[in-house]
This record gives sequence, C-alpha cells and structure tokens, in this order.
Amino acid sequence: MDEDVLYHLDLGTKTHNLPAMFGDVKFVCIGGSPNRMKAFALFMHKELRLEDAEEDMKDICAGTDRYCMYKIGPVLSISHGMGIPSISIMLHELIKLLYHARCCDVTIIRIGTSGGIGIAPGSVVITDEAVDSFFKPQFEQIILDNIVTRSTELDKELAEELLNCSKDISDFPTLTGHTMCTYDFYEGQGRLDGALCSFSREKGLDYLKRAYNAGVRNIEMESTVFAAMCRLCGLKAAVVCVTLLDRLECDQINFPHDVLVEYQKRPQRLISKFIKQRLGLRDQTS
Amino acid sequence: MDEDVLYHLDLGTKTHNLPAMFGDVKFVCIGGSPNRMKAFALFMHKELRLEDAEEDMKDICAGTDRYCMYKIGPVLSISHGMGIPSISIMLHELIKLLYHARCCDVTIIRIGTSGGIGIAPGSVVITDEAVDSFFKPQFEQIILDNIVTRSTELDKELAEELLNCSKDISDFPTLTGHTMCTYDFYEGQGRLDGALCSFSREKGLDYLKRAYNAGVRNIEMESTVFAAMCRLCGLKAAVVCVTLLDRLECDQINFPHDVLVEYQKRPQRLISKFIKQRLGLRDQTS
Repeated sequence: MDEDVLYHLDLGTKTHNLPAMFGDVKFVCIGGSPNRMKAFALFMHKELRLEDAEEDMKDICAGTDRYCMYKIGPVLSISHGMGIPSISIMLHELIKLLYHARCCDVTIIRIGTSGGIGIAPGSVVITDEAVDSFFKPQFEQIILDNIVTRSTELDKELAEELLNCSKDISDFPTLTGHTMCTYDFYEGQGRLDGALCSFSREKGLDYLKRAYNAGVRNIEMESTVFAAMCRLCGLKAAVVCVTLLDRLECDQINFPHDVLVEYQKRPQRLISKFIKQRLGLRDQTS
Repeated sequence: MDEDVLYHLDLGTKTHNLPAMFGDVKFVCIGGSPNRMKAFALFMHKELRLEDAEEDMKDICAGTDRYCMYKIGPVLSISHGMGIPSISIMLHELIKLLYHARCCDVTIIRIGTSGGIGIAPGSVVITDEAVDSFFKPQFEQIILDNIVTRSTELDKELAEELLNCSKDISDFPTLTGHTMCTYDFYEGQGRLDGALCSFSREKGLDYLKRAYNAGVRNIEMESTVFAAMCRLCGLKAAVVCVTLLDRLECDQINFPHDVLVEYQKRPQRLISKFIKQRLGLRDQTS
C-alpha cells in the first residue's frame, strides 16, 4: 500500500511520522472508558516521574471521537469502547501502527472493569484463560461468510509476573481465574434487569454457578477477541480487570461513586508497579 | 424493583424524575459518534426554532463517558459507540428510560455511517431489511448459553415515509436497500487492509458481489440488534446511513475531511425534514 490510513485513530503513514512518534513504545495499556484511560495516563506520568509537564499530555487521537490515546514515555494508554467489535477495530489499527512504527518487544495489557462471580467486589482478576459464553477458550471470527475458530490463549509468564507484582499490594485481593467474554451486558450475562428478559432468577443463577464451576471468576465483553488477535500477531498480552459487584448476589452496580472510582484504580496501580519493575525504577507508591 | 439504575447512562429512577425529564419525547435519533450526535442536536435546535438558548443544551449523560445524550424539545439525540454490544447496552437502558418516563408513540431512527456496495459514495440508504453476514434477516442473541434467533424486521411504513421525505432533497441520492450488519470492520467486511487478512482481493470482492446480488447496498455494525430489540419492545424503528465509500472500488476511507463531514450531515438533513413534517412545522431549509 502506498498509504495506510488508520481511520478510527485519525493517524496515517503519509500524514504522521509513526516511527518518530511511537518507535520507543514498550507497553500498551487499554481500557473501555476514555476518561479512565486519561486518568491512567496522568497517573503513569506521575509514577514514571517524567520531566515534561503534565499539561503537555495531549490526546493523540483528538481528531476523532472514536478512541482516545495518550503517550507517557514508553507507555501508550488507549480507550477501546465497549464490546468485541469496538475493541477489534482499535486493535487492527493499533497493531498496524506498532508495525509501521517498527516497535518491538511490546507488552499489551487490558485494564478493565467486570462483574465478579463468587468473589468479593473490588477484587482484581488476572485472566488465565479467556472463555466464551459456553466456557470454551475460543473466539469465533466471521471472515466473509465463514466462521473461523481462534485460540484465546494468553501469555502464561506475563500473567505469573503480574500475580507476583500483586503480592506487594496488600489493600485489595488479586487472583487468577478464567474470564468469560459475552456479546451483551444483560441477557448474555444472565441479568434480569434489562429491557428484555426471558428467563427466571433461578435459571440465571444456575448459569452463573455453572460458569463458576468451570473456573470463571469474572465476566466482561472484550477479552476473547483481544487474546485471539494479540496471539495471532505475536504480542504478549494480559487481561487485568477489577470486579464491581458479585453477580451471585445482584445484577445492578450500585456502590457509591467514590467506591467505584477507587476500585477502578486498582488494576492501574498493579500495572504501574509492573511497568516500573520492568523499567528498573524504584517503587515509591503501591 | 425498588430502584432502577441505568448505569451506563448515569441516570436512575431514584436520582432523576424521568417522567418530568423525558415524558414528552417522541423521536429518538441515535448514532455511533458522540461528536456527530452533538452536532445533530445543535442542528435540530436550529431547525425546530426552539426558544431556549443553544448554550443551555447540556449532555444529559455527562456523568459518564460511555454515551452522550441531548434533548431538543421532543427529540432525543444519543450516541451508541461502535458495534452490536455497545449499541445493545444503550438500547436496554434507553428502552427502560422510555418506559419509566411513560413515553408513548416513540419513533427511533439510527442515523449512521456505512460502507456502500455498488452505489456512489455519499448516497443515503434507508434500510428495508437488516441482514447478518450470511445475508439473513435475523439476529442471533446468546441468552445464557442458548442461541436465540430474532427477526430483524423494521417498520415498512416508516421506511416509506422517509423515502417520500427524501424526494424533496435533490442534492444527494437516497435509496432503499438491505443493510448488512457485521461484528467486525476488517475481516468480517472483506477488507484486505486490517492487521490480519487470510483471503485474496478476489475472494473478498466475490463476497461483496454476492451481498450486492442478495440486495445488500450498505454495510455497518449495529442494524440487526437495533431492529430486533426495537421490534420486540414495540418501538417503530428505521435505519438511515450515508455511505462513505464504495466497497467494490476500495477498502480505505480517504475522502478529504470536509467531504466526509458533508456526507455525515445528509442523514441528519433527511431526518430533520421528517421530524418537522411529523410536527407540522414549515420547512425552511432542506
């Protein structure tokens, strides 16, 4: 191709010097909410004690409202919206960006929110296996009109390294477990409180308990396609999500705002610790 | 339920007086991009000649960054992000909102962007049938671990009314056709320019031509679940998308920014005309 337009990131090979802009990237952290990924960027700026002013940190994708992107030294922080299709568009264009920028040895981590199953709200789950609604570690990609099944295996060593990092953080529990990825927040996750519901509380609970028995500890909406695409493109990937509620107890997220905000910082704190350790920086906070 | 928290809209039955806020809503217009839906709100404010100042128009969902929402008299303008999962979360919560607010006779229209097949870029397609990647007018919803097939039939009279409105607008072509809804922008739509591609240009083109022969005139990523959910909940629904390129010619969207901006206004102009006609307002612009 003469030119590659990364349409949804508002970047391109002719309009931007991608190697100069991104060549030193070693860590890519992604999450659904643009505000949360901006907060993570500000947090990392402080943690890495970078010299440039915090005010200079600009949204690299400001020309589009599909995603936001911030660069903090060797760290990229990007939002991906909600659900498999939204994250897959971002990943296609991000992976092309890393290729055009000639980045190497990049580690990519999704830091998200999720519903827990049978664990205390506020727990952080490091995914050992991303599974679909049928508890299978696979992602079905429709290519033209064929269905292709892809493995959702994640990097085992990276997950272990993250679990080790978590041992120094004592004020919230971190565990490894399977993460179930669904196409929908309501009917697909056994919630009774959507606009449509065709099953009983009993049936919904039975499904969630079967998920628990299959090793699932949390549910979100992006992990399978994330794992599948990163694996095929040779990126070491991990999924680290905090749980905002225990789905065996309730359907609605109704903790006070400040509690939810603190929960959402937990994966960020773990990932900051991990990145600083990798960079050989001394830890000041935890 | 004692309280219903519409989590992703940052609204709730205990924290907000939903009937007072939304009881008079008759038209809901939705689209992927928050900036575009804000622009539509500002445009409708001018078109409906409302007396309150434009500056008073606030994002009703400002407390969350998942979606944005503006109210312009009887019109709601809401963003839904990209893809089936993202729009489905918004629709569940919007439909509950309309129920709690005791709204009646609501018409809902998705005004979006899409890739065309065999039609000139800039054409506006009114969907007569939303079909999946296999050209079938159905949506497969996973409920717990069952797959339930739902009809994606849209309101025929509404589509006809919209087509009639379009006859007064002479500076761009509007047509009816099937709209194909995919889970992915790259591999699922036969694009060769994603990070992953396992088929030839020939195979991709063959698929797009088969889609054309099945009656598909444009491709986007939300119409099937939108049609299925609105139908089940008794909302009259339509999909009106502009095409940004002809997929038989190319994969990348690379028209100049101002051309794309003008294209994106086309569905808005059509819907404004339709709403003003329904409200019995005289048309000033077209």
